Amino acid sequence: MIEANLIKHFRVAPGKKFKLKDYDPDWAGTEALEDLKKGQLKKAAAKFLAEDIEALYEAQQVLWASDQYSLLLIFQAMDAAGKDSTIKHVMSGVNPQGCQVFSFKQPSNEELDHNFLWRYAKRTPERGRIGIFNRSYYEEVLVVRVHPEWLDKQRLPPGKRGKSFWKQRYEDINNFELHLANSGTKILKFFLNVSKQEQKKRFLERLDRPDKNWKFSPADLTERRYWDDYMQAFEDAIEATSTEYAPWHVIPADHKWVTRAIVADIITATLKSLDLKYPEVSAEQQQALAEARQQLMAEK
Amino acid sequence: MIEANLIKHFRVAPGKKFKLKDYDPDWAGTEALEDLKKGQLKKAAAKFLAEDIEALYEAQQVLWASDQYSLLLIFQAMDAAGKDSTIKHVMSGVNPQGCQVFSFKQPSNEELDHNFLWRYAKRTPERGRIGIFNRSYYEEVLVVRVHPEWLDKQRLPPGKRGKSFWKQRYEDINNFELHLANSGTKILKFFLNVSKQEQKKRFLERLDRPDKNWKFSPADLTERRYWDDYMQAFEDAIEATSTEYAPWHVIPADHKWVTRAIVADIITATLKSLDLKYPEVSAEQQQALAEARQQLMAEK
Repeated sequence: MIEANLIKHFRVAPGKKFKLKDYDPDWAGTEALEDLKKGQLKKAAAKFLAEDIEALYEAQQVLWASDQYSLLLIFQAMDAAGKDSTIKHVMSGVNPQGCQVFSFKQPSNEELDHNFLWRYAKRTPERGRIGIFNRSYYEEVLVVRVHPEWLDKQRLPPGKRGKSFWKQRYEDINNFELHLANSGTKILKFFLNVSKQEQKKRFLERLDRPDKNWKFSPADLTERRYWDDYMQAFEDAIEATSTEYAPWHVIPADHKWVTRAIVADIITATLKSLDLKYPEVSAEQQQALAEARQQLMAEK
Repeated sequence: MIEANLIKHFRVAPGKKFKLKDYDPDWAGTEALEDLKKGQLKKAAAKFLAEDIEALYEAQQVLWASDQYSLLLIFQAMDAAGKDSTIKHVMSGVNPQGCQVFSFKQPSNEELDHNFLWRYAKRTPERGRIGIFNRSYYEEVLVVRVHPEWLDKQRLPPGKRGKSFWKQRYEDINNFELHLANSGTKILKFFLNVSKQEQKKRFLERLDRPDKNWKFSPADLTERRYWDDYMQAFEDAIEATSTEYAPWHVIPADHKWVTRAIVADIITATLKSLDLKYPEVSAEQQQALAEARQQLMAEK
């Protein structure tokens, strides 16, 4: 496990000013680790990751057996920041029975005809389960804010679409997350913070390597043109919605091994902090178990 | 990979008489393997399993990328046959993004007010995905057949509940599965065939080991009393619903390492037989990729 204090380093403090420029996408180690050469650091991170995956496997089993809390993980990022591969590498060790991933694409007409949280609310994880949203209702204050013309399809009541409109959406989201938290859902939100130049590098890689071509859509470039608008939208949304009960984490994403190690560590630490135990058996249940044992032994 | 012919050994031939007594729950090796001592065999199976998990990880990635077929895995068995642990051990290496497990418990009132396939139909896997049903609509011709009084809750149109009633249910299921198959869903059905005495052994283990107590419910014993009725229900259901497009496999389940290795092997072989490839890029798309490349390089 990475030093416990490190998590704070990436967690966005609730109710405070938040500036993206204070978070370095290229970050790859604390000062304490700076003495290590890059190769050593990478090796150390791989070790942390392997340990966390192991711990995550254990923690998820208790989460499932104790059937009290659920965990909702939200991933948001620009294209090519590594959402898919982070989910794959961090969660692949987990029993798929206790974990569900939902990727949200363009909403259907039926979905557009409902309140904007509707299609997400239906997919929140039940007690005992880890739910992962690969993109989420935050798209409603990110891509929709960058392209406000998309709102037309939502046929909302008339009104201005200025600052107070987006503020209302942030509040809707906070209230929704508070409701989930009150019902026993632990929420962790991750913004994978990739730099514009690293995105370019990864796009070029997808273009240059035939086996990666299928991952590239020319539409990806279109959104890249709105980079600054997106950064503003992320900054505002994260500042307005990082709460005690559903904190945002800004994860350096220019090095995939860094991203994976930190995300795995935050999830593991959170599950461990719940201090869950396998269900205890009451005296009454003990009695029932003893009777069952007798019955079985008495079988011909 | 286990010898290819082995799969046939466990697959129930469509349209033929099927007798459970021809399948040995205690099976642990073909004749060709009989020379190996049990320890060696177990080690060999662990190796097969590890190879299959690796192959499954690869195969699932292509299934996802090619976005053409989906895979539906159905697990049915008596209690303690190892459904949960098989799913865990066989599927844990798979990217959870491409895999969804659904465990079906007692139906809700809303579900009871619909046709019996309704709640399952909603959860079939979309293209590219592996869907796992831990119990399924087969409960409707298994537990419900053993306890026909459960039908009362379904408030079906009046009529006799004799042979032709169950035959109609088998046909409904076959037609449903044919429809899925026609839409590109590959269906594999597994009956984990545990013996009555092995179940007893596992129940006693759950009773004796405090860390396993929580897994035991005294209700499990109640169902055990209907063992013979269940075997009859399984036999009839499997004979009536093992088809070319949705075959049943009767998996020996008295040794967990055997169960896991065979299930992993059948899934892997099926995915491989689809001969899927990563999507190819058309000449037109090539052109678009080249333009995207130029645009990126021209950025200031």
